[in-house]
Formats: sequence, C-alpha cells, structure tokens
Amino acid sequence: MTMASLAQLETPALLLDEAQMDRNIARMRDRARKLGVTFRPHVKTNKSIEVARRLMESPEGPITVSTLLEAEYFAERGVKDILYAVCIAPNKLDHVAALQAKGVRLSIILDSMETARLLADRVRSHAARFDVLIEIDSDGHRSGVKPGSEDLLRIGRFLEDSGIPVQGVMTHAGSSYDSPSVDAIRAMAEQERAAVVLAATRLRAEGIACPVVSVGSTPTALFAEHLEGVTELRAGVFVFFDLVMAGLGVCRIDEIALSVLGTVIGHRPDKGWTLVDAGWMAMSRDRGTSAQAVDQGYGLVCDVHGKPVDDLVMVGANQEHGIIAHRSGRIDGALHLPVGTQLRILPNHACSTAAQYPQYQVLGPAGDVTATWQRFSGW
Amino acid sequence: MTMASLAQLETPALLLDEAQMDRNIARMRDRARKLGVTFRPHVKTNKSIEVARRLMESPEGPITVSTLLEAEYFAERGVKDILYAVCIAPNKLDHVAALQAKGVRLSIILDSMETARLLADRVRSHAARFDVLIEIDSDGHRSGVKPGSEDLLRIGRFLEDSGIPVQGVMTHAGSSYDSPSVDAIRAMAEQERAAVVLAATRLRAEGIACPVVSVGSTPTALFAEHLEGVTELRAGVFVFFDLVMAGLGVCRIDEIALSVLGTVIGHRPDKGWTLVDAGWMAMSRDRGTSAQAVDQGYGLVCDVHGKPVDDLVMVGANQEHGIIAHRSGRIDGALHLPVGTQLRILPNHACSTAAQYPQYQVLGPAGDVTATWQRFSGW
Repeated sequence: MTMASLAQLETPALLLDEAQMDRNIARMRDRARKLGVTFRPHVKTNKSIEVARRLMESPEGPITVSTLLEAEYFAERGVKDILYAVCIAPNKLDHVAALQAKGVRLSIILDSMETARLLADRVRSHAARFDVLIEIDSDGHRSGVKPGSEDLLRIGRFLEDSGIPVQGVMTHAGSSYDSPSVDAIRAMAEQERAAVVLAATRLRAEGIACPVVSVGSTPTALFAEHLEGVTELRAGVFVFFDLVMAGLGVCRIDEIALSVLGTVIGHRPDKGWTLVDAGWMAMSRDRGTSAQAVDQGYGLVCDVHGKPVDDLVMVGANQEHGIIAHRSGRIDGALHLPVGTQLRILPNHACSTAAQYPQYQVLGPAGDVTATWQRFSGW
Repeated sequence: MTMASLAQLETPALLLDEAQMDRNIARMRDRARKLGVTFRPHVKTNKSIEVARRLMESPEGPITVSTLLEAEYFAERGVKDILYAVCIAPNKLDHVAALQAKGVRLSIILDSMETARLLADRVRSHAARFDVLIEIDSDGHRSGVKPGSEDLLRIGRFLEDSGIPVQGVMTHAGSSYDSPSVDAIRAMAEQERAAVVLAATRLRAEGIACPVVSVGSTPTALFAEHLEGVTELRAGVFVFFDLVMAGLGVCRIDEIALSVLGTVIGHRPDKGWTLVDAGWMAMSRDRGTSAQAVDQGYGLVCDVHGKPVDDLVMVGANQEHGIIAHRSGRIDGALHLPVGTQLRILPNHACSTAAQYPQYQVLGPAGDVTATWQRFSGW
C-alpha cells in the first residue's frame, strides 16, 4: 500500500524504515527474554503509539516515560503500567494523582530524603497513594543515591514508615554512552546490574520488600552478560538506533532505521560544499558523535536508498541549510549531486532528531511511503 | 489579566516577557526607520502570529520565512508579502505556485545557473510566474553567488531572457554571529551592504532593474552605520535575543525576553550539582556560546524573577534532566536551592530553544502568565 514515493515528499521529512525498526525491536525483545527480565521499553525516543504498540509486551504496557505528557498520551491509548523515570517535582503530584485516578499505575521515582519528605507530607495531607521507586546512581553520570550509602537505607525506612511502600529500585547507566569499546559497555552493564542489586539487597536486609529491580540503557541492555537479581529492563533508542550507537559498536550503520530526507538546493564549488534544505532544525543540534572516534558532523549522507554516498557528511548546519562536504575536506568530493537530488541523512541521536518532527514517513519494503505515523512533542 | 502564576505552571515551560519583547521590537523598528529601509522581519524565530503582528509594518507584511510551512501559516493569517529566504528546491515549485494562487506574493531565491535553468523550464512548461531574487554571498559562510562574479551577471541575464524579471538581490551576513567585537560587527555590516549593493549595481549596468536590495542579520542590522543603496532589512532573533547575542555585545543579559522555567528535582552534594526537570529537550542541544569568550553551558540560571542566581549555569543536560552547577566548579556553589524551587534558564539560541515548545507562556508586568500564544513547528 503505497501512499507516496519519496520524490513526492516535500523536504525535509523524517523517514522510518519499518522493516529495520522491526528487526531492531526483535533483537531487544529477544535479549530481554534471554536475560529473563520484563521488558519496559522507554517511549521517549518514539513518542508514537504506532511504534510503542510494536515495543510493548501487551497493549497495557509496561512502558517507561520521561514526561507526564508522554504518560497522558499513552494512558489515553490504553497503557496502564507506566514508570515516570525522572525524579518527581512536588508540583507534578496533582497531575500524577489525576492519572492514577484514571486507572493508570503510574510509578514515580526519587533519590533524596528531601523529596521523600515532600512526598510523605503530600500522602498525609491528601490521603494519597503513590508507587515509588528509589533511583540508584550506578555510574555517577546524573541523579540517584549511591547503592552502598546510608542515605539509601534512610530513604527506604522513611518511606515505609510514612506508609509509602518502596516498589523497587531503578538505575540508568548513562555513562555507557561514553564507553570506548564493547568490552567497556559489558563492564558497565555489570556495574549497573551490581549497583542496583546491591541496593535491593541492602533494602531487603532492612525488611523492605523492594520487588522491582530495574536497569536500562540501550548499550548495557544489548551487551549485559547476565542480569541476575534484576527484574526488568528499560531501553529506548534501540528502536531506531543512530550514529552514536553505531560509533559505540552497538549497531551497524545499516541498522539505523531513522533518516532525514533532504534535497540539494545548491553548490559552492570554491569550497567543495553541496547545500541541502535540511539544516539543524531538521537534524537537531545534537553532535553526539563529536566526542567519538569518528565524528559524523550533523549526519552521514546516504542516497535515497539509504546507502552512504562516498564519504559525505553534513559538516555544518544553519537553521534550514545543511552544508555537505567530503569527510576528508577534498574540495571536489561533494559537487556531483545535482540540484533537486534527494538524500537521506542519518542522525547523530534518534531522540533529538525525531523530536523535530510531527510525524514519521514510514517506508515499506519497496522504499515508498506506506503510512504516516503521528508523534507528539512538548510537555 | 492573570491566567496563572508561575507556580501553577508544570515545568518545563517556555516563558516570554512581553514588555521586554516589545522593547526589543521597538529598538529594531527604530533602527530600520533611521536607516531608511523597509523592515521585513524574519519570523523563523517566533513562528507565531501574535509575535509577528507586533513585528510587521502592516497586517499584510512584509515578512521573511525559512520554510513553506511558515509561508502557509502566515498566509492563512492574512500576510500577503513573503520572502522565502532559502534557495528553492525544484520540487517545492508546485507549493509555491499554490500559495501564489491564493493571492500571496511569495518571492523565492536562487544562487546558480543550475537552479535558474530548472526554474526557466518550469516557467515555460507551466506558463508560471515567479518573483525571484538572486542570493549574494557577502561573507563566505553559506550559499550565494559572489557579487563581483561573472556568474551573477550570467544568472541575471538568463533569468531576464527567460521572461523571469529579477526582483532583486539579497544576502545574509551569517558570519556576524562569529564576530569578536562590536567593531567587527560594524565592519561586517558594511561588508554585507557593500556586497549586495555591488551586485545590484552590476546587474543594473546590464539593464536589469533589480529594484530590491535586501540585507539582514540581527547583529549587522543593529550596528550598521548606514545602509546606502539598500532597500530592505531582515532580522529575526532580536525579537527575543539570547545568550549568543549577549555574548556578541548585541544585547544585555537582561534584555533576553525568552527563558525556560524549570523545577529543582534533586541534588548531588558530592558533585556540587543541582538537578532540574529541564534538560536538552527543554533547552535544545544548541551550545552556541561554546565558542564565545563566556561559555554559558546549556543556559544561564536565573531566579523566578529573571535575575541571575550567583553564577550558576546548566553545565550538562540529558533529555529531561538539566545539571546546574557553579560556573567556577565550586562544589558548594549550587546546593542551596531546595527541591521544588522554580528557576528561569536563559537559552543560548532563541530559535532553537523556542522550537522545542508548542506555546509561549506570556508574562505580564507582574510576572504572572497573562496569555498563552501558540507556535508551530515542522515543515
């Protein structure tokens, strides 16, 4: 069922290779099954019910979200089991309660006595009930309480004493994105697992049941050797993959399911530049590969079939202009693409590039657009 | 007329200080008047009819746009004179023609014989009429034909011979964003003016009328000493200003009208970090100040009234987490803001930060939200 050929699309447009996405999902679901854990996909990357339905173990979830708008959107579409994986701000508790009142089990997280006290105050004053996990810091990259700390036990005891049962512990090894090798990712996966399992073990020694032990990042999920003691796995970016993941060795370039379709609008022969109508608004400002061994600029340039063209990258970007040149700087390397040529540009970071678009143009097996899937943005 | 206090907003949210915006607009309109040129504001920064109505010389325009969706949106709201300031891709000509058929004078630009030929083919085959300007390269930063080149005259003669009258020449001195000083901006403004006036003079010597001579970038517009020979001025980011403009000396920090409201969600005392619920999705990935003398990280942290707090900046960002720390790295410098504290974070680049939001929360004189203005994104 073809809706349009690529030539009919006005550019820039966000393309999603459906078959490749399905393979990426199958790979991660297979991992979760082999590791013996529940799969709770993170939907912040895709923000689309059509994508999420292929990810979830059932139409009711479970899923992980990064905003309450994501929780609202997926709850309205039947998802019942949602983890909001950003430490809760007290002025969001009304919104959380409103979602719970609609029959959603919306779990929240915290990592401090300060927030635990604010939550306990709220539970007392409103006779409210919240499902709470404690966030554990497994790698020092962001938030979370240290798994071996006295603070962890204080928070756990305080919550239980305040009538707030600790549903579990969760962590995100975001440092895995900076790993220099697959071996380092493997080591980080073990560090992530060991940290959160230690936290659960220490809480249980205090008589706190702590049923959920949750880990997740795409690199660690794909390379963990085992997840003993862990009950659930979260990951999001694997659904599309991107150049950062390829640079880490987590996927191949040809496994990236997301690309931006742009059109050649001019050349600068004196500089070796080809200009396209896809700039940083189309690619996002994300330069995630800039710290990797291979810097892909604002994106790697492929032909309309998704095959890399020579060694062309988007070396610069203005709001609606992309500057394409040969990676080597060769001045004659990027001038052979006539005005009007469509190109597919692979993104540094799927989450940030997809966020620039209201919809996915879904590519079927013949490379034509077979569907348009809406996605949302904002908060 | 208060709709909400800031405390009632769920964060992150995009705040727009209306009075400051009005002052910024008055400053630029005053400049255009004194310079004796038509003001054709660029609406790519704001993408909102409420903002654009305050910018435009009349409800019918003129305006500058960076996408055809912007042209569509503003045309539907009564704007009749629109310059689409990105070299035209041939597969957009149907769309341009459709807008013209609705009574919009939509001018397009090009910078090569290659595109001129494609346009001439189209004019012949469809008996179409297009308003065309030639883009001039005044600083080597992006697209455009050199003002002293033989190519310029070839393109001009070819268009006229093909029955496509040259409406004018236009340029954008994007390099002004990299100027090391206000003196350098002033010199760049003169370079921009001289280049486009040279191009017009050379075309006129060939018998090509070339009525429009158009320049524009916020820095050069604000510092040009005169615009002799120029007929119109374009600029966009001045409406809000941002940290990049402040770093250039184009505005003061307290003239930035746009900020992101975030809420403190935790602390990492061991690292001196305060975490907020506004990450790169809320700020954008734009790190425009990273190459300036003062690197503002992902944004400069202000209190809820818009005053900078000590010397706190957002030093790191994940998708929905911002990491705030003291600029000096002092570990005790950023820990005094309790969970639940709202902060206003000034953005590096107004265009990219605003693009992350579906609406502006408009602040009135008392610092409360007095209106919500929708904005759009995508293509």
